[in-house]
Amino acid sequence: MYIYHRKAYYYETDRMQIIHHSNYIRWFEEARVAYFREYADYAFTEIEQQGITCPVLSVTAQYYNMLHFDEDFYVETKLEFYNGIRFKFSYQIKNQEKKVCCEGTTEHCFLHADGGIVRCKKAYPLIYDMLKKQLEKDRENEEDFYKAYSKDQ
Amino acid sequence: MYIYHRKAYYYETDRMQIIHHSNYIRWFEEARVAYFREYADYAFTEIEQQGITCPVLSVTAQYYNMLHFDEDFYVETKLEFYNGIRFKFSYQIKNQEKKVCCEGTTEHCFLHADGGIVRCKKAYPLIYDMLKKQLEKDRENEEDFYKAYSKDQ
Amino acid sequence: MYIYHRKAYYYETDRMQIIHHSNYIRWFEEARVAYFREYADYAFTEIEQQGITCPVLSVTAQYYNMLHFDEDFYVETKLEFYNGIRFKFSYQIKNQEKKVCCEGTTEHCFLHADGGIVRCKKAYPLIYDMLKKQLEKDRENEEDFYKAYSKDQ
Amino acid sequence: MYIYHRKAYYYETDRMQIIHHSNYIRWFEEARVAYFREYADYAFTEIEQQGITCPVLSVTAQYYNMLHFDEDFYVETKLEFYNGIRFKFSYQIKNQEKKVCCEGTTEHCFLHADGGIVRCKKAYPLIYDMLKKQLEKDRENEEDFYKAYSKDQ
Repeated sequence: MYIYHRKAYYYETDRMQIIHHSNYIRWFEEARVAYFREYADYAFTEIEQQGITCPVLSVTAQYYNMLHFDEDFYVETKLEFYNGIRFKFSYQIKNQEKKVCCEGTTEHCFLHADGGIVRCKKAYPLIYDMLKKQLEKDRENEEDFYKAYSKDQ
Repeated sequence: MYIYHRKAYYYETDRMQIIHHSNYIRWFEEARVAYFREYADYAFTEIEQQGITCPVLSVTAQYYNMLHFDEDFYVETKLEFYNGIRFKFSYQIKNQEKKVCCEGTTEHCFLHADGGIVRCKKAYPLIYDMLKKQLEKDRENEEDFYKAYSKDQ
Repeated sequence: MYIYHRKAYYYETDRMQIIHHSNYIRWFEEARVAYFREYADYAFTEIEQQGITCPVLSVTAQYYNMLHFDEDFYVETKLEFYNGIRFKFSYQIKNQEKKVCCEGTTEHCFLHADGGIVRCKKAYPLIYDMLKKQLEKDRENEEDFYKAYSKDQ
Repeated sequence: MYIYHRKAYYYETDRMQIIHHSNYIRWFEEARVAYFREYADYAFTEIEQQGITCPVLSVTAQYYNMLHFDEDFYVETKLEFYNGIRFKFSYQIKNQEKKVCCEGTTEHCFLHADGGIVRCKKAYPLIYDMLKKQLEKDRENEEDFYKAYSKDQ
């Protein structure tokens, strides 16, 4: 899991005086890029320099609490699934008081320049290994979390 | 159903040279506002003048085909659900060749200025009746569509 | 002169409940693209298909009156200057009541893929001729305007 | 002077594969908010809590070099002018190699909720004193800079 953090910008607000819902989708992307920067053997920019892109296949978001201008927010970013072709991230956005404001997911694959799907295991083993390793780690974290949680009971 | 149409803007593209996925969420909003303008007894701006807002509770989007700068797109916008409190829109975005590029949904409710949930039936019967009427209409359209479709077989 | 028209979107508002100032810069671009579509022998997308881009060299904007969600706005777009290399557009954004809300300018050139400056007269005579012709026309319009104006006196 | 720093986001790029020019205007705002947070006796959010807003009266930007996804950028932010009513910021955006990519200015005033202009000296002496003090400091910095520069000769 990677926790991405910044403050909400003025231009991200709307006339309800809250952060416009479309910006959370952009924050997912910021968090995902930071996740790759932190954990990948090479960063997102370098992945694209290999001539492959990483489009978004799907997005979901549920909004629970509003965020406002200049508030701190934290995006807890986790790899949830990877089968060598598709991968899925989950995100939980919390405010300064650790209240969950938004939860969501994004699904992705890698594409060659000609639009063909990249099978990372053969073509980009460094990416494949990193994603497999991180998937494992993010799952362990979750188990640790649930173990810790059940001891609390 | 309401079909919202325009061309994609230059600033909506990203470095993959396609429309950035977050903009489709904004197009859902443009289409939703146009739907209200077309069908509501009073428009979206007037709803907010009543002192109530209409936040987004959830968003989903699946991306099937890419759209590019200056391409025409069409957002087929339908009310899918309304129980007097929550309502849900579905969207299908097609390109000039009628290829589906994106499908999605948004859920909403109305809120009083103090954050309390609006029960439209009592508080705003005009909105309640409009949404109920449109829900019926959008369902009928769908039946018409399926009837027409089965005749083709 | 070309007049570009649409309504302001919800997501273009900010917490002052007006259109965020950065969006006017994006509207200049929308209007410029529409100007090319209307007057160029080939459209903006086709210009880029030639392998040349049209970056922005400078922007200015003065804000006189506020625009709000769902308000109609009109961008009066004029070519002000062209010397075969650089060109400059001016924009005047008016609301439904013809009140000037924003005035601004943008400067541009064309670049080859390698970053070199395009001299259109030789390399793209169709673009050169179109811009020269439009420059003339937009100036005449202005004279017509001032003639008409002085008769009013 | 305040130096605001972050990396460029993916969604800020356009199909020229550079940062879209409109985002620099948004970065000016981010830098300005950070300047207030750093130097004001109370922060920007608190200023608005007093019931006054701080609209943008004008914007200028010149673009010299392109910035790309994930590149670091630095916004050198300086108060240039303040007469008790209007104030003006200047910005210089540099990349990692200290190359100037963009220069610009914004002008502002403070407005009461009814749209009337705020005369800070009487109404908000804390803001008045802060801006006057910072104006002085930012000018001294400049002199220091030029002194240091002339010694280099």
